[in-house]
Amino acid sequence: MANVNVQRLDSQQADFSEQLDKLLAWESVSNKEINRTVDEILERVKVEGDQAVVEFTNRFDRLNASSMAELEFSQKDMQEALENLPEDQRHALTVAAQRVRDYHERQKGESWQYQEADGTLLGQKVTPMDRAGLYVPGGKASYPSSVLMNAIPAHVAGVEELIMVVPTPDGEVNQLVLAAAALAGVSRAFAVGGAQAVAALAYGTETIPKVDKIVGPGNIFVATAKRAVYGTVGIDMIAGPSEILVICDGNTDPDWIAMDLFSQAEHDEDAQPILISPDAAFLDKVSASIDKLLPTMEREAIISRSLIDRAALIKVADLDEAALVNNRIAPEHLELSVEDPQALLPQIKHAGAIFMGRYTAEALGDYCAGPNHVLPTSGTARFSSPLGVYDFQKRSSLIMFSEDGASEMGKVASVLARGESLTAHARSAEYRIKD
Amino acid sequence: MANVNVQRLDSQQADFSEQLDKLLAWESVSNKEINRTVDEILERVKVEGDQAVVEFTNRFDRLNASSMAELEFSQKDMQEALENLPEDQRHALTVAAQRVRDYHERQKGESWQYQEADGTLLGQKVTPMDRAGLYVPGGKASYPSSVLMNAIPAHVAGVEELIMVVPTPDGEVNQLVLAAAALAGVSRAFAVGGAQAVAALAYGTETIPKVDKIVGPGNIFVATAKRAVYGTVGIDMIAGPSEILVICDGNTDPDWIAMDLFSQAEHDEDAQPILISPDAAFLDKVSASIDKLLPTMEREAIISRSLIDRAALIKVADLDEAALVNNRIAPEHLELSVEDPQALLPQIKHAGAIFMGRYTAEALGDYCAGPNHVLPTSGTARFSSPLGVYDFQKRSSLIMFSEDGASEMGKVASVLARGESLTAHARSAEYRIKD
Repeated sequence: MANVNVQRLDSQQADFSEQLDKLLAWESVSNKEINRTVDEILERVKVEGDQAVVEFTNRFDRLNASSMAELEFSQKDMQEALENLPEDQRHALTVAAQRVRDYHERQKGESWQYQEADGTLLGQKVTPMDRAGLYVPGGKASYPSSVLMNAIPAHVAGVEELIMVVPTPDGEVNQLVLAAAALAGVSRAFAVGGAQAVAALAYGTETIPKVDKIVGPGNIFVATAKRAVYGTVGIDMIAGPSEILVICDGNTDPDWIAMDLFSQAEHDEDAQPILISPDAAFLDKVSASIDKLLPTMEREAIISRSLIDRAALIKVADLDEAALVNNRIAPEHLELSVEDPQALLPQIKHAGAIFMGRYTAEALGDYCAGPNHVLPTSGTARFSSPLGVYDFQKRSSLIMFSEDGASEMGKVASVLARGESLTAHARSAEYRIKD
Repeated sequence: MANVNVQRLDSQQADFSEQLDKLLAWESVSNKEINRTVDEILERVKVEGDQAVVEFTNRFDRLNASSMAELEFSQKDMQEALENLPEDQRHALTVAAQRVRDYHERQKGESWQYQEADGTLLGQKVTPMDRAGLYVPGGKASYPSSVLMNAIPAHVAGVEELIMVVPTPDGEVNQLVLAAAALAGVSRAFAVGGAQAVAALAYGTETIPKVDKIVGPGNIFVATAKRAVYGTVGIDMIAGPSEILVICDGNTDPDWIAMDLFSQAEHDEDAQPILISPDAAFLDKVSASIDKLLPTMEREAIISRSLIDRAALIKVADLDEAALVNNRIAPEHLELSVEDPQALLPQIKHAGAIFMGRYTAEALGDYCAGPNHVLPTSGTARFSSPLGVYDFQKRSSLIMFSEDGASEMGKVASVLARGESLTAHARSAEYRIKD
């Protein structure tokens, strides 16, 4: 039986707060060399278009394409990928897509207007973006579930064109990804990746249309490119390593909790699994489960690295204190593995997604619960939200003054504009004041 | 009479599309020297806290403070500023604040939940951020209206602490800004500005609390600092120069339209005022009004620079084509100065705020219409929204599976997780499948 030393913390320790800070510290690496390479790729794609994209794709993915047309998947490719899936996979993917769609339908923002007594009308018009770009990583991190989670909110928002890019290193195509694209309503798909794909989506080329927003995870080149084009197009958040915080009252099967922690840890050596409980004996039991189950895991090496470097088992006084520690951490995923999660919920202020009750494994949320699995990491749940339909809609304010309203408000605006020495503002408003 | 040559375009020109691209081209300047200076200020404030903030403030604003405490305004300072305002200004500011509050109340997001047949519960919990930071520029660009527009949405969202920073170069305090802070519900206010103020809000110091999001306009040092701390805290958009697009059917008083164009132009030499009309003779009339009115303007120099370098009068075939050109531009402010703006509205896809009808001067929206005056610039209305209550709230997904639901969905998750080779995910889900 392997013994993994997972760090133990206790909220009664004098230095608990500092220890917690140390545990949570995470600096994303920014690298000058990578910045320079990415800037060069962005510039070349901006100027040369398709030709540069094909050249970089041939070089980095070891392909031999002679034109962008060769790198485009057809709708037929996507449909066939879906039809050719084994029955159990097609069924599971279809159920997941439908549940994700049903949940996201409830996020749609609606336009509204109201009229004031003098006839003045105010409101907010909600419209979808015209075109969204979806980055899907290639190779091992190529997840069909990510295609669903990124594409369906855009589709529900009413985005008319959804452009997917996915690299195919050495020509290897992930049929599950193409099948998911078919289910999620992707309009066009290209076998390109890396900074060159981000550049193509941000600036447009002869073949790849310029989009309004780029979403989806990627490696350091993709993340750097997204940060660089932010402003030219919208982007989703730059994600850090995945995290789970489990709050347990001590009465869930410790094997279940150990496996829930593993399910984050297996993503990445930097992933952060944390367990909080008021029951010290339960922490011991989970520790024993970890030691028992770890040798049975396919990704044992990754999981143990994450457990040793980034995990913690934290003893607290009670569930109220557990909620306070949660609010300090603002985790991406929070499991409330307790008897009465509804009672604890009002105390939870910050978390990307909240998994309530012993049966709600976080892994269900990754695939088929319905809510999005793209969630704020590294404490950014303090100020950000899961990816959603609202990320693909935007608002325009509506203002229509009646003649009377413009006259009354013209007087107010005039005083304030003159207070700010903006006299053209004042005179523009004053023209609309009735004699 | 001054003659200003405003560029004329016509949609019938063969090269109209290229000319439009040239007109709209805008590259925000990024400067290595400024980046280095800002990075140094951020690092020193992060490490040294209050001491560095006081030192930079004394140096850049020519003050002589010996501690942060001396640089804090009290609630009494803010209340007195409000009480001491001339009656017309206090009244105008109070009316504006109330109207902004009323409008923004309608933007509040609400939590929701729903239950499925097997008892599984899904939902979305909406919560405010704990603390927001509001940057207010000093000197000439110190606008009380901006205090209202940035602070009120945060207050309506339920943000408990609202921290304002405003530099006071040479000790000059803008009483209108303090009065607006009192009206808008600012919790604490400090006489600091620049990159050092952004750093203090992002990292926290002994005196200035760390916030979750920083909003508000500022100079290039402030914008560079905000971009650098993005991720550590949330930020609002980095704003480009202000813009107005007026679509007029030719039947509005040309003096009114000229003054509306001036009201953007007076902000800044880089501001961009554009008029579109199907009536060529009307463009001539507005041109004459410009020449007539320009010499009467306090900010004549700034306005003429903006008109010469960045403005355009565009002739189109009809209002439908005007809407198409608008959607290409995605302007910050759009005036529909036409007989039936409601009829044109469905064709408008992208604009920060839409001012409808001849009476609705854009300037009314800057102060007291109700909707926010912080709006997406430089075409970013294609994918972003006005500042709003939604910028100070965030969402957490809620998932609570029943025993039956977890069992059924466990099967689906298991298939998909194994398809992605994530076996800890699969086993975590499988534990919840009933025998």
